[in-house]
Amino acid sequence: MMAKASSIKMFEKPLGMRDTFSTIYEQVEYIRTQGRTVLKQHGYQFVKTPALEYYDTIGKASAIHDATLFKLVDTQGNTLVLRPDMTTPITRLVTSKLLSEKNPQRLAYFASVFRAQQQEGGRPAQFEQMGIELIGDKTYFADAEVITVCIELLRALNISDFKLTIGHAGVLGCILKDYTENEEQATSLNELLVERNFVGFEEAVRGFGLPATKENALISFMNEALNCTNLQQIEQFIRNNEDLKYLQQLLMILEQAGYKQYITIDFTLASHMSYYTGMLFEVFASGSGFSLGNGGRYDGLLEYFDHNEGATGFSLRIDRILEIVEFDFEMPDETAILFDEAHYDEAVQLAKQLRGANENVTLQLISELPNKKAYEAHFQKVIVLVSKEDASK
Amino acid sequence: MMAKASSIKMFEKPLGMRDTFSTIYEQVEYIRTQGRTVLKQHGYQFVKTPALEYYDTIGKASAIHDATLFKLVDTQGNTLVLRPDMTTPITRLVTSKLLSEKNPQRLAYFASVFRAQQQEGGRPAQFEQMGIELIGDKTYFADAEVITVCIELLRALNISDFKLTIGHAGVLGCILKDYTENEEQATSLNELLVERNFVGFEEAVRGFGLPATKENALISFMNEALNCTNLQQIEQFIRNNEDLKYLQQLLMILEQAGYKQYITIDFTLASHMSYYTGMLFEVFASGSGFSLGNGGRYDGLLEYFDHNEGATGFSLRIDRILEIVEFDFEMPDETAILFDEAHYDEAVQLAKQLRGANENVTLQLISELPNKKAYEAHFQKVIVLVSKEDASK
Repeated sequence: MMAKASSIKMFEKPLGMRDTFSTIYEQVEYIRTQGRTVLKQHGYQFVKTPALEYYDTIGKASAIHDATLFKLVDTQGNTLVLRPDMTTPITRLVTSKLLSEKNPQRLAYFASVFRAQQQEGGRPAQFEQMGIELIGDKTYFADAEVITVCIELLRALNISDFKLTIGHAGVLGCILKDYTENEEQATSLNELLVERNFVGFEEAVRGFGLPATKENALISFMNEALNCTNLQQIEQFIRNNEDLKYLQQLLMILEQAGYKQYITIDFTLASHMSYYTGMLFEVFASGSGFSLGNGGRYDGLLEYFDHNEGATGFSLRIDRILEIVEFDFEMPDETAILFDEAHYDEAVQLAKQLRGANENVTLQLISELPNKKAYEAHFQKVIVLVSKEDASK
Repeated sequence: MMAKASSIKMFEKPLGMRDTFSTIYEQVEYIRTQGRTVLKQHGYQFVKTPALEYYDTIGKASAIHDATLFKLVDTQGNTLVLRPDMTTPITRLVTSKLLSEKNPQRLAYFASVFRAQQQEGGRPAQFEQMGIELIGDKTYFADAEVITVCIELLRALNISDFKLTIGHAGVLGCILKDYTENEEQATSLNELLVERNFVGFEEAVRGFGLPATKENALISFMNEALNCTNLQQIEQFIRNNEDLKYLQQLLMILEQAGYKQYITIDFTLASHMSYYTGMLFEVFASGSGFSLGNGGRYDGLLEYFDHNEGATGFSLRIDRILEIVEFDFEMPDETAILFDEAHYDEAVQLAKQLRGANENVTLQLISELPNKKAYEAHFQKVIVLVSKEDASK
C-alpha cells in the first residue's frame, strides 16, 4: 500500500494553474463549437501543434517576454518551452511543410498557451486561445479577411458591443523615427505606447530636448492618433506614406462590408515585437476591462523562418470571452436512477431506454450514497427503484 | 527587423512531439464528439485540469515511471511535472473539492498527457486520452458500469472486434504471496507479469528453489490464468477469496447485460502500481498490436489523498483508436472563390450566400497564388471571378 501524500501542497496546483469544472467546461465547449463553425465556413483548417517546442526557435521567436516562458531541459540537453503562443508554432509548421503543398495557407487553432506567473492571485499561467493564421498573402484583402473573420466570430457568440482598435506598426514606426533624434528615443517612446502610458510618453517627449516643431508634432500626433476618426488627420504628420494608403484601402473595404460600427483607428497602438510589420489590432468589448485578443500582420516572423511571404492573423482569449458571453444554451437535464440490488436489471433497462431518447442518465446503487438528499439535488429528475423496506429508510 | 533563425533545429520539434494536420484533427474531433455523447449519456461530466502539477503530489503518485516525467522548476523553486496521466489530477480535484458537494462523482476527460521519450522514432511524448473516473463507490456495480461505458464507447466508434481482458490485482497478489517464500520473490514475479514475460516468469519460478508443490502451482496457475474461461479454474489455487467472489458477481452482471463476447479473463494481468487494488483490465482490438487503453479499481490512490472511498475508471488512447476506426463521415466540400480586385464585392456577396447554405468557402485574391493549379486541387469546387483579360492569363 502506498504511503499517504505528506506534502502540505497535497491538494494545491502550481501558481496560476486552474481546474475547469463542468459548467465552465461546457461553456468553453459552446464557444469552441460556434467558433469552429465560423472559422471552417471561412475556409480555415484546424491544426494542432505540440505543447513543447525548442526554445532556440519557438521560444526566442515568440512575441512573449522571456521571463514568462516555462522552460525545461530534455534528456538530450536541449532547452524546451511550453508554447507561449500559437502564431510561432504555426509559422514553423507552415514554413517547414504546408506552404509547399498549398499557398496561401489558412489555418485555425483552439489551444492552451502557457505563461509563467510570478505571484499568487494574478493572471492565469495557462489559458486557451482560438485564432487563425493566413500565410502567403501580402495584400490588404488578407488583412480585411482576418478582421472580418474576427468580427464574424464575435457576432456568432452573440457579442455585439465590441470594437476592433486598428493601428499600423509601419506608420507609427515612421512617425517615431521622423520626429525623434535617434533610435533610442524612438524605441523608448514605442515602449511607453505598448504600456499605453500616455502621460509617460508626453514627459519623455518633453525631456528629450527636441526642436520645438518635433516636440509639438509628437504631442499633437499622440492626441490626434488616439482620437482618430479620419486618416486625413494623420496625413499632416506623414505624407505619401505607402502604409497609410494601404490602411486607407483596408478601411474602405471594411466599411463597404458594413463593419464600420466595429472599428476604431488608433495609431498609438504599438507592439513590443519587431516582427509586427503592418496593420495591427486589439479587440475590446464592453463588460471586460481587458483586451479579448489581438491580431495583425507579421511578415517579419516569416522572414525569421526564411520565407518571403505575407502573414496575418488574430487570436482571442477564451477566458476573457467567457466573462462576457451571454450563453443562450441550457445544460441538458440530468436524470438519476437510484436502485437497490434487487432492481439492478430494471434500472439498467430503464437507463438504456432513456439514453436512447437522448437523456443523460446516471445509474447509482442507492446504498453507496452517503447523503441521498445532497446527491439528488444535482439532478433534474430522480427515479428510485428499490424494494419497499429500502424505500421506507 | 529580426535576425533569421540560425539554429539547425529551426523547423524541428522536440523528441516524440508531433504536429496534427487537419485531416487527422477532424478524425480526432469525430472520436471526441462521439465519445462525449456516450460519456455524458451515462451521467459523466467533463472537467479539465492544468497541464502542470506539483511533482511532490501528482508526479510521485501517478502510475508513470519517474524517468518519463517532464520536470521543470518554477519561480518559487518547486518542481513541477507535465501531467503524465489524468487519473491522479482528477483524484486531486475530487478529493480536494468535489466529493464534499456530490458523492459519488462521475467525471470524464479528453486531454493530452506527457511522457518523455529517450530515442527518435519511438513513442509519442504527448498523446490524447479519453476516459472516466467513478469515485465514491466501492461496489462491483461501479466496476461493471466502468466496463460497460468502455464497451459502449468503443461500439459508438464502430469498433466491434475488441476484447477487454480482465484481471484482479488482489487475486494475483494473494497467489504470488501464497506460493512464494518471501515478498522479494512475489515482487519480481509481478514485475515479469507486468512485462508479459511468461518465459521469464517460469524461469524465475524454477530458479527460486521453492518446494515442488509451490513451484508446480505457480507454473500451473500461469497456464490456467492465461487461458481462463471459467473462474472455477482459479479456485483450486485460492479458496474462499473475497476478491474472487467479487469478480464472479461482476462477470455475472456483465454477462447478463450481453457483454460476454467482449470479455476475456486473465489473472496474469498485472500492474506495477500498488494503488491498483482490485479489478483491472486492458483493451485490445484487432488491427492494433498495442493496448487501446486500460482501467481498473484504484482505491489505494484515494487513500494516498487521505480519503476512504472507492474509485474506478478507464482511459483510452486516441492515437491507438485512430489507427483502427473506420470513419463513416465525409470531410465537407471546400469551395474556393478566386477573385481579382474588380470582382471583390461580387466575391464577398457570393461567399456570404454559400456560407449561409453551410458551405465552407475560401475567398482568395487570384494574383497572390504562386501556383493556381496546385491550389485549386485542394478544393472540390472552384469559382473564378475575374475580368476577361485576367481570365485569359
